Amino acid sequence: MKEEKHLENKGLLLVFTGNGKGKTTAALGQAFRALGHGMRVAVVQFIKGSWKYGELEAAKRFSDLLDFHVMGRGFTWKSDDLTKDIAKAREAWQFTCELLQQNRHQLVILDELTYLVTYKMISEEELLAGLARRSKEMHVVVTGRNASPGLINAADLVTEMREIKHPYASGIKARQGIEF
Amino acid sequence: MKEEKHLENKGLLLVFTGNGKGKTTAALGQAFRALGHGMRVAVVQFIKGSWKYGELEAAKRFSDLLDFHVMGRGFTWKSDDLTKDIAKAREAWQFTCELLQQNRHQLVILDELTYLVTYKMISEEELLAGLARRSKEMHVVVTGRNASPGLINAADLVTEMREIKHPYASGIKARQGIEF
Repeated sequence: MKEEKHLENKGLLLVFTGNGKGKTTAALGQAFRALGHGMRVAVVQFIKGSWKYGELEAAKRFSDLLDFHVMGRGFTWKSDDLTKDIAKAREAWQFTCELLQQNRHQLVILDELTYLVTYKMISEEELLAGLARRSKEMHVVVTGRNASPGLINAADLVTEMREIKHPYASGIKARQGIEF
Repeated sequence: MKEEKHLENKGLLLVFTGNGKGKTTAALGQAFRALGHGMRVAVVQFIKGSWKYGELEAAKRFSDLLDFHVMGRGFTWKSDDLTKDIAKAREAWQFTCELLQQNRHQLVILDELTYLVTYKMISEEELLAGLARRSKEMHVVVTGRNASPGLINAADLVTEMREIKHPYASGIKARQGIEF
């Protein structure tokens, strides 16, 4: 019974992974759901532009509750200067670890975080340690392709978004209000 | 070239299906993205309670742009009186077809619509005909498990949300701001 009570207080770790559309969009929905409850929410965006114009404008109506941190500004992890990218990625992760240990937010969205592990900018051990040290009741959503086995193991909920059909495949262009 | 131009104007049909969490949440994110662009959005909720307190409260900040229609109020499609359920489902679908033909919204979310086909309350042909007759530039998002082959075929984008891990499986209860 004691353990059950402990579980009920502990914040959840949610992971949206897979190659299909909907990972960031579901995280966005998760943020708005929490905001609707008056929760304080932080979004950390690890890839430049993963949050688009539409959601950024929508987010403005919640500026009283929502903190938005763009870590990827000015770099896309595709620079030729890998050393510089790694340094910035590690800085971003350090910032995130501090954010996770503060007790300011009830939900933190770490959007496209898995790329830092995939590209070996941080190790899976560092990732898991940072998440484990988060404020006790804080919920965290991690999105990105190729979530590593350790992350899946640590998560409470994991959904794989599988691409069944994509409009770009049939030559349809990205559309305002839908893709961005 | 002409056809390409035609495709660019035509609204997209997006389908979020599968047994995992994130279908309604991604639709919710999609709605907020469009709202951020100042688009008019309608949500039609076919299952009572699929949109929860959090998102309903968040939606209030967009009451200038967002119309919300709850079709499942008072019934859950699980009533013993199937005849009554079918009549209500057909009424709901009729309402939706009219909404789709009006030119009032740029995005319409049809949340949990697939259940009406799964439970044979409307036929796949009726579903596809109603969607095809929608206002030309209107984007539509359909969510729900077991999207039928015809719907997948008609869609521009389909993501399957696969459940990899669910917190209920480990005895963790639904959490405010996350699940509702």
